[in-house]
Amino acid sequence: MQSDFTWTIRVYYEDTDTGGVVFYANYLKFFERARTEWLRAAGVSQQAMTEAHGVMFVVKSTAVNYHAPAKLDDELKLTVVVERLGRASVHFVQEAWRISGDHQELLSTGRIKVGCVNMRTFRPDMIPESVMQRIQAIPDAAPAGKP
Amino acid sequence: MQSDFTWTIRVYYEDTDTGGVVFYANYLKFFERARTEWLRAAGVSQQAMTEAHGVMFVVKSTAVNYHAPAKLDDELKLTVVVERLGRASVHFVQEAWRISGDHQELLSTGRIKVGCVNMRTFRPDMIPESVMQRIQAIPDAAPAGKP
Amino acid sequence: MQSDFTWTIRVYYEDTDTGGVVFYANYLKFFERARTEWLRAAGVSQQAMTEAHGVMFVVKSTAVNYHAPAKLDDELKLTVVVERLGRASVHFVQEAWRISGDHQELLSTGRIKVGCVNMRTFRPDMIPESVMQRIQAIPDAAPAGKP
Amino acid sequence: MQSDFTWTIRVYYEDTDTGGVVFYANYLKFFERARTEWLRAAGVSQQAMTEAHGVMFVVKSTAVNYHAPAKLDDELKLTVVVERLGRASVHFVQEAWRISGDHQELLSTGRIKVGCVNMRTFRPDMIPESVMQRIQAIPDAAPAGKP
Repeated sequence: MQSDFTWTIRVYYEDTDTGGVVFYANYLKFFERARTEWLRAAGVSQQAMTEAHGVMFVVKSTAVNYHAPAKLDDELKLTVVVERLGRASVHFVQEAWRISGDHQELLSTGRIKVGCVNMRTFRPDMIPESVMQRIQAIPDAAPAGKP
Repeated sequence: MQSDFTWTIRVYYEDTDTGGVVFYANYLKFFERARTEWLRAAGVSQQAMTEAHGVMFVVKSTAVNYHAPAKLDDELKLTVVVERLGRASVHFVQEAWRISGDHQELLSTGRIKVGCVNMRTFRPDMIPESVMQRIQAIPDAAPAGKP
Repeated sequence: MQSDFTWTIRVYYEDTDTGGVVFYANYLKFFERARTEWLRAAGVSQQAMTEAHGVMFVVKSTAVNYHAPAKLDDELKLTVVVERLGRASVHFVQEAWRISGDHQELLSTGRIKVGCVNMRTFRPDMIPESVMQRIQAIPDAAPAGKP
Repeated sequence: MQSDFTWTIRVYYEDTDTGGVVFYANYLKFFERARTEWLRAAGVSQQAMTEAHGVMFVVKSTAVNYHAPAKLDDELKLTVVVERLGRASVHFVQEAWRISGDHQELLSTGRIKVGCVNMRTFRPDMIPESVMQRIQAIPDAAPAGKP
């Protein structure tokens, strides 16, 4: 499944470590920026969702493979693909690519499972209907044959 | 004014940047860890204070001078001195020293002004009496002639 | 002195803390992103500068005042103004504004002093001539009557 | 396989997010702090290893499950168990537990695969013999029947 949505960021000093490359934990931040902008592009504000419905998205699991390192000043393109959309969860596959002119290099791949929870109890809760509709309206966001 | 309280930390990859040294913004984290442990040593839990009194400490201003860089694996000693204790604010002077055997080197100096605010309105509020008493009981925490 | 250069960012979960607002140390990151993009807009890549000249910019001091807190999903506009341009240092005044439709609110103000140092010795070194020319070519970057 | 090594940390404001809990990416930092102290306890300094042998450990993949959230001021116990020790890689299983008096609660579990690479080429390289010996001397660090 292909996704048209991408989010581009730059690597700053804050993202790097003394190994001369991006600190690996920061790819989780990059992936989240992309998911947030993907939601925003669909018209969903997480802050507004929490205020209106008392629920929020929390990350349940992350799995990231690091193929090649990014460096200071690199331009990274992040992808967002929904692998599975449930009533209270969304499973994402995301990639980080280095963009250099016409050349692209895959740097890391992540599988991020997000759950919708009650903001007070942290127990699973259904994704609000209005949010669900906006997610389903994203091209390729709700793959055929998945709930 | 001298303070006996110090807090020791290690420098990890997460703290460094591609310049090969600790990323300068992270000294603010180090200083806060020391202030938190200084409060904890005095019997004050910020989480408990917020739950019991609806107030929390927020940083109003920071001023940090960087004298020499810390590197991966360095052991740092952080100091906490109260320069001024007000009814709704505390002004700290803090230092970060590199410890290497018998040798010590001053790496950075910070002046951090903290205010007590209502957790909802973010407006200044008085430091709870029980917290104030614990702070004043810290040796050298409430310098003579200061409110 | 007015500067035309601004850099816009979004506040993500990674930037916030349990107080419900942006963690204060992160404004130093935001300010640096803006300075980096300001340099990039002038045609200066810090990575390239280090590789070509063996020097890099390091932060010598920071002073930040926090006026109002930013929250998740806020759109922030960051400004970059050069207060003083020396042979081996640049002094910046920077502001963070929250943008909300037509409304703008000043959230924090920072004074950041940056030095150019040899990448190995960390001793002060002159800003490379080619970099200096690019900085001076930025409108308002080199205020009259300042070295 | 049981491991005796644990590393205890505190949760500070810097670790939390506006959801009121520890930001999930930060468990990768916590796990790394524990691995670093585990290596240090075995007499291995990563900085020294890089300087002496020109190699460093880099993270190749991470997989983390989040069971329950940690909050400000929580005391966390981190475990380090070697699942597999290869000539150029170490596979870890790590856990984060909340300690509260006699009570312990499992918060997250991570599987971290670390590779030894040449510091310039980032290509896989053998773990230096002296480092390997120290790791193997850690009780339970080199499980029977594994290379």
